[in-house]
Amino acid sequence: MPNAVVSIIGASGYSGAELLSVLAGHPSVRLGKLFANASAGKPVHEALPRLAGVVKASLEPYSPDAACESDLVFIALPSGEAMNLVPELLKRGKRVIDLGGDFRLADPGTYEHFYKRVHTAGDLLGEAIYGLPEWNREKIRNARLVANPGCYPTSILLPLLPLLKERLLGNEGIVVNSLSGVSGAGRSASPDLSFVEVNESVKAYKVGNHQHIPEIDRALTDLARAHVSFTFVPHLLPITRGIYTTISAPLASNVGEPEIREAFQRCYEGEPFIRFVPVPEIKHVAHTNFIDIGYTLHRESGRLIILSAIDNLVKGAAGQAVQNMNLMLGVRETEALL
Amino acid sequence: MPNAVVSIIGASGYSGAELLSVLAGHPSVRLGKLFANASAGKPVHEALPRLAGVVKASLEPYSPDAACESDLVFIALPSGEAMNLVPELLKRGKRVIDLGGDFRLADPGTYEHFYKRVHTAGDLLGEAIYGLPEWNREKIRNARLVANPGCYPTSILLPLLPLLKERLLGNEGIVVNSLSGVSGAGRSASPDLSFVEVNESVKAYKVGNHQHIPEIDRALTDLARAHVSFTFVPHLLPITRGIYTTISAPLASNVGEPEIREAFQRCYEGEPFIRFVPVPEIKHVAHTNFIDIGYTLHRESGRLIILSAIDNLVKGAAGQAVQNMNLMLGVRETEALL
Amino acid sequence: MPNAVVSIIGASGYSGAELLSVLAGHPSVRLGKLFANASAGKPVHEALPRLAGVVKASLEPYSPDAACESDLVFIALPSGEAMNLVPELLKRGKRVIDLGGDFRLADPGTYEHFYKRVHTAGDLLGEAIYGLPEWNREKIRNARLVANPGCYPTSILLPLLPLLKERLLGNEGIVVNSLSGVSGAGRSASPDLSFVEVNESVKAYKVGNHQHIPEIDRALTDLARAHVSFTFVPHLLPITRGIYTTISAPLASNVGEPEIREAFQRCYEGEPFIRFVPVPEIKHVAHTNFIDIGYTLHRESGRLIILSAIDNLVKGAAGQAVQNMNLMLGVRETEALL
Amino acid sequence: MPNAVVSIIGASGYSGAELLSVLAGHPSVRLGKLFANASAGKPVHEALPRLAGVVKASLEPYSPDAACESDLVFIALPSGEAMNLVPELLKRGKRVIDLGGDFRLADPGTYEHFYKRVHTAGDLLGEAIYGLPEWNREKIRNARLVANPGCYPTSILLPLLPLLKERLLGNEGIVVNSLSGVSGAGRSASPDLSFVEVNESVKAYKVGNHQHIPEIDRALTDLARAHVSFTFVPHLLPITRGIYTTISAPLASNVGEPEIREAFQRCYEGEPFIRFVPVPEIKHVAHTNFIDIGYTLHRESGRLIILSAIDNLVKGAAGQAVQNMNLMLGVRETEALL
Repeated sequence: MPNAVVSIIGASGYSGAELLSVLAGHPSVRLGKLFANASAGKPVHEALPRLAGVVKASLEPYSPDAACESDLVFIALPSGEAMNLVPELLKRGKRVIDLGGDFRLADPGTYEHFYKRVHTAGDLLGEAIYGLPEWNREKIRNARLVANPGCYPTSILLPLLPLLKERLLGNEGIVVNSLSGVSGAGRSASPDLSFVEVNESVKAYKVGNHQHIPEIDRALTDLARAHVSFTFVPHLLPITRGIYTTISAPLASNVGEPEIREAFQRCYEGEPFIRFVPVPEIKHVAHTNFIDIGYTLHRESGRLIILSAIDNLVKGAAGQAVQNMNLMLGVRETEALL
Repeated sequence: MPNAVVSIIGASGYSGAELLSVLAGHPSVRLGKLFANASAGKPVHEALPRLAGVVKASLEPYSPDAACESDLVFIALPSGEAMNLVPELLKRGKRVIDLGGDFRLADPGTYEHFYKRVHTAGDLLGEAIYGLPEWNREKIRNARLVANPGCYPTSILLPLLPLLKERLLGNEGIVVNSLSGVSGAGRSASPDLSFVEVNESVKAYKVGNHQHIPEIDRALTDLARAHVSFTFVPHLLPITRGIYTTISAPLASNVGEPEIREAFQRCYEGEPFIRFVPVPEIKHVAHTNFIDIGYTLHRESGRLIILSAIDNLVKGAAGQAVQNMNLMLGVRETEALL
Repeated sequence: MPNAVVSIIGASGYSGAELLSVLAGHPSVRLGKLFANASAGKPVHEALPRLAGVVKASLEPYSPDAACESDLVFIALPSGEAMNLVPELLKRGKRVIDLGGDFRLADPGTYEHFYKRVHTAGDLLGEAIYGLPEWNREKIRNARLVANPGCYPTSILLPLLPLLKERLLGNEGIVVNSLSGVSGAGRSASPDLSFVEVNESVKAYKVGNHQHIPEIDRALTDLARAHVSFTFVPHLLPITRGIYTTISAPLASNVGEPEIREAFQRCYEGEPFIRFVPVPEIKHVAHTNFIDIGYTLHRESGRLIILSAIDNLVKGAAGQAVQNMNLMLGVRETEALL
Repeated sequence: MPNAVVSIIGASGYSGAELLSVLAGHPSVRLGKLFANASAGKPVHEALPRLAGVVKASLEPYSPDAACESDLVFIALPSGEAMNLVPELLKRGKRVIDLGGDFRLADPGTYEHFYKRVHTAGDLLGEAIYGLPEWNREKIRNARLVANPGCYPTSILLPLLPLLKERLLGNEGIVVNSLSGVSGAGRSASPDLSFVEVNESVKAYKVGNHQHIPEIDRALTDLARAHVSFTFVPHLLPITRGIYTTISAPLASNVGEPEIREAFQRCYEGEPFIRFVPVPEIKHVAHTNFIDIGYTLHRESGRLIILSAIDNLVKGAAGQAVQNMNLMLGVRETEALL
C-alpha cells in the first residue's frame, strides 16, 4: 500500500513531533492531517520550529471526519485519551496505532488499577495487537489496532523474552532497574521536571507501582509463556533522550554463557534493529531505532546481568510505531528508520 | 587536640581539593603542607582557582619530612600510591587517613586480584581501621591509620548493614545498582571521560568485577557478620557529583515494614549525617555530608527496595574523611560539616 | 548588633532557600520566621529536603505581626510583591533587604514601563539604598531599606563602574552579553524552563528590553556619573547556577592596559569578594560570593573585552544580601560568606 | 555524476563520523575508503558503535593509492594535516573537500601567524574555493579543492554578509560573541574538556586571537567587499553540539528594520538551509543543516542585534561539506540533508 495517507493525533507532543519528523522523510507515505490541542491553528513551523522548512502543514483541532480522510491514524496522546477516539476510527474502517497505554493491557480491571481511571473501550482490549515487531510481526501486519509498547517495556522485554521463553532464567528474584531521560515524561509544565529540579540529580519514582509493570507481566506471559516475579524501579535522569535498563536475574541450573548467546542468536538473528554489544551506551542509540543489548554472567551469584539501551522517543515510541506501520502497509520494515 | 596541624598529600585532585575546601573552614585545625604532583610549585589560586582568596598556601612536591611537621596526614592519591607512603608516616608517629583503596581490604591477595598490583605494605592491613564512623566510631577515635571507605561502599553499606546485622534480609539474590557522577573517576584526561563522551549518555562499567566488591564483602562480614551473595553494577552518569544506589533484596521470612523501620531507627537514631526520606534525590545531598535513605517493601516479590544518595566527594570521600578526623582529634564529629 | 533576629519572606524559592542555607550557618544572627506561600504549613525538611537536619523550623503564611518579631526582614519574592509589604515593615521600625526588583529604580514611571505594573510604594524609591557593597558601603550600613541588586547588573556593574568612573571607556558602542543559568528565572513551572526545553540548547531572550537595563543605567549614572549607551542581550544556558558576562567596550583615547589595571586596583584593592583572573569560569565562583573578573585589550579594534562570572544565587542574590545584612548589623562583612 | 565514490580521511573524529553518517544515507554516492589513524584496522562498528548495523566497512590506515580509488575525498583531520595530503590528491585528479583550516586563508603568512605552523602547500591557497554555498555556489560546482568553512565563521558570515554587502552596518564597533558546544574542539583527551571541567560552567577562550578571525576577515572582504573592525570572543558551553552567535553592530545612518529585512530577503530568498525566526535556539537546529537567524533593532543605541544558531557538526562541518559535495557532483543541493 504505497503512498498511504497517515495522520497524527497529538502531533505537537514529544512523541508526536518525533513521529512527524520520521514520517516527513518516509518515501512511502503521505502526511495527512496533523491534530493538536493547545497548538491547533498554528503552522508547524511555529509550534515546532525545529521542523520549519521541513513540514509545511498546519496543526488543526481534532475532528473524526478529518482523521478519516487518512488510511492509518497514529494517536500520540497522553494515556486515557485514545480510548475515547479509537472506537469510532475503527468503526469507520481506519487502522490505528496508539502510542499511549490504553490498549496494552489484557483487561479493564488492571487498567483501572494502574491508570486510575475506568476504561471506556474495554471491549477492544482483546483485539489490540501488542506492537513489538520482533515478537508479533505477523499479527501486526494484519492488525486494525496496534498498541505500541511503552518505552520501559520495550527496553526490558526485548532482552528478557528470548531467555525466559527458553527457560534459561529462574522465575523469581528478577530485578529490573531502568533509567530514563526526561522526554519520557512527555511535554509538560510540571515543576518536578523543570531544568533546575532535574539537572545534576537522579531520583527513583513510582517504586514498585509503575503502570508499565502489568504491561511487562502480560507480555512475558503472552509472548514467552513465563510467569515471573520481579521488582522494577524506574529512575529519572538529567538527559533528554534514552532509557538504560539493567537486569539482574538468576540463571536456571546448568545454564552458561553459550546457552544465553545461542538463545539470543536463535531469536534475533537478522533482526535489523537489535544489536549485541559488550556494554550498551545511550549515546550509541540516541536518535536511532536500535536497541543495544549486552550481558555478563556473574558466576559468584549464579546470576546474569543484562543491559539494554534505547532512545525512548524512537525505538521506545515513534520509531517503533513507524516500524509497525511499515509492517501494516507492507513496505520494507526498516523504511525511513535505517 | 584543638588546632592540630593537618596536611594533604594529593591536594589538587578532586577529593583533595574538596578536602582542602572543607579544612579551610574548619575551626579546630590548621592547614599544614599541601602536596601535589603535577601542580607542585604553584600557588593554590593557580592550581585551584576556585580557592583563590580562600586558601593562600602553595602546593609543593611531597617530602616525608615536610609531611611530618603535621599531626595528621590525609592521603588523597589514586589507589596504589598510599601504600608506599604510609609505613614511614606511621613509623614517624603520624596519624593517617587514606582516601584511596590501599588499606580497605583484609589481605594482600584480594588486593592484588582486584587492584592488579602487589601490595607493598600488606602488614599494615590488619591495623587499618575502616573509616565508617557510624559503625566503627570507637576504633576510629584511637586509630593510627584510617582507611576511608570508597564512595560506592559508603552508599551501599550504610543502608544494608542494619538490615543484614538483624537478619532481616536473605543472604542470596541481593542486587545492587549504583549510578555515579563523573568526579568519582578522579581528575584525569581519559578520552572516555571527555564531556562529549559522557554527556547525554549512560553506561554500565566493570560489571561484576569492580574493586569495591571485596570492600563491601569484607565490611558486611566484619560489621554485620553477614555473608551474602550479591551482584553489583556501577553506572556512569552525566552529572558531576553524586552517587545513587538502588538495592533490591529478598526479605527474610515474616519481616514487614515495621521490622525494617525499627532496625534502622535502633541503628541510626541520632546519627547526624543519616536522613530517612521517602525517595532520595542526589540534588538534596550534593555538597553535603548527608546520606539520604529511603525504602519500599514490594509484597508481590517479597523484596525490599532500598534507595540511597550521597555526594561522592563529600560523604563518599572528603567529608567522611573529615568526620573521621574529627573523631580522631576528639572534636565535635560534625565540625565543619554541618 | 550580634544575635539579631532575621526573617525571610519567600523562604522556599531559589533565592530564599539559598538565603536560608547561608543564614543557618551564620554565627551572628538567629533565624526568626520563615514565610512562604505554596509551602506554608510544611516543615522545612519537607518543602526543602536539602535542609533536613540543618534547619528545624516550619514555613508559615506571611503575617506582618510575625515578621515584626524580627530585627531585619529579607524579602525574596518575585518582583511586584515587596512593594506591598515594605511600607508597613518600615513603619513598624523594621529594616528590610529586598532581593526583588521593586526598589532598584529611581522613579515609578520607569518601573511601570519595564515591570508592566504600577508601583504602589513609589515614595520609598528615593530612600532605598542600592545594595552594591563595594560602591555603597557606608550608605548600606545605615539603611532602612536596601534594594539588593539584580544578578545581571551585579555581574555587569562591578567590572564596568571603575572604568567608567575614571573615563577610560567611550560612552557609546558598549556591548554587553550575559549568559545565565536557569535558577535565575526562579522556581516556576513554565514549560519553557522544563528540562527538555532548556537542555542542550541556548537562546537569547528579552533582547534589548530586559528590566535590568534601567537598573544598570541608573547605577552607572549614580555611582560613576556615566551616561552611556549600550546593548544588552541576556541568554539562557543549560546550567543551574551562574552568570557569565562578556563586555566589549571602546577604549577612550590613549588608554592602555596599565590604566585599566590601575583603575581596577585603586577601586577594588582589598575587596574580599572581587578576584582578578586571566579568564573567569563559572565553576570557580559557583556556590561562592566571589565575582571573578578578567580583561583583554584588543588593539586592532581599540576595544577592551571584559569578562566576569558570578553565582547568580549567591553574589547575584542571597550572598550579596547577607553581605549587605552584615554591613547593616555591624558584623564582619564576610561573616558566613568566606 | 551519480554514484560517485567518496572517501573520508579522518573518519573516526567527530566531524568525520558525522560525515560518514550523512553519506551512509546519501542516495547518490557510494562510500569508498574510510581512513583513520588511531582506529585503523577496526571495523566501523567497533570504532563508532553508533554506526553498527548502518555502515559495514572497516577503517584503514591512510594510503594515497587507496584514496585515489574514489572520485572525491573528504579530509576531516585536525588543521595542519590536510596540507600534506592535498597536493598529491589534486595531482592525481581527485577533487577534495577539506573540513579543516588549512585552505581557508589567503596567504601563508597569515596562516603561520594564527595556526603557529608553516604552510607546506601555500601555492594552493589561491585555488581553494571557500565552501560557503550561499555565496560561492557557482565556483564550488567546478572546484577541485573546497575549503569547508569553520563552524564559527559559518554562524557569523551568513548573517553578516548580506548587511555588509549592502552597506547597512557601520564598519567599526562590530561585536561578535559566539557560544560553542564541546564537540567543536574535536575528539580529544584534553583534561580541559573532561566532563567535570566543562559541566555546569562557561568560559571564554582565545579572546581576540582565535584562528577563525582571519577567516572571517577574508570572507567579509572577498564576498562583501567590506573591511570591518570587530571583536570576537568564543565561549565554551556545556552542550555537545551547537553554536550560538550574538552580534551587536552599529547601523549605518538612515537604516531601519525594512532595509534589514529586505536585504536578507534579496539575498536568501529560496535558500533551503537558511531560516529566519524571531529568536534562534540551538535545539531547533541540532542535527540539521539549517542556520536560524533572528534580529532586533535597538533604537536607543542605533545598533542591530543579530542572532544565529547552527549545529557545529552539521552546517558548521559535515552537513555543509555534503552540501558542497552535492554542488560539485551536480546532484540536488539538499540531497541527504533535508
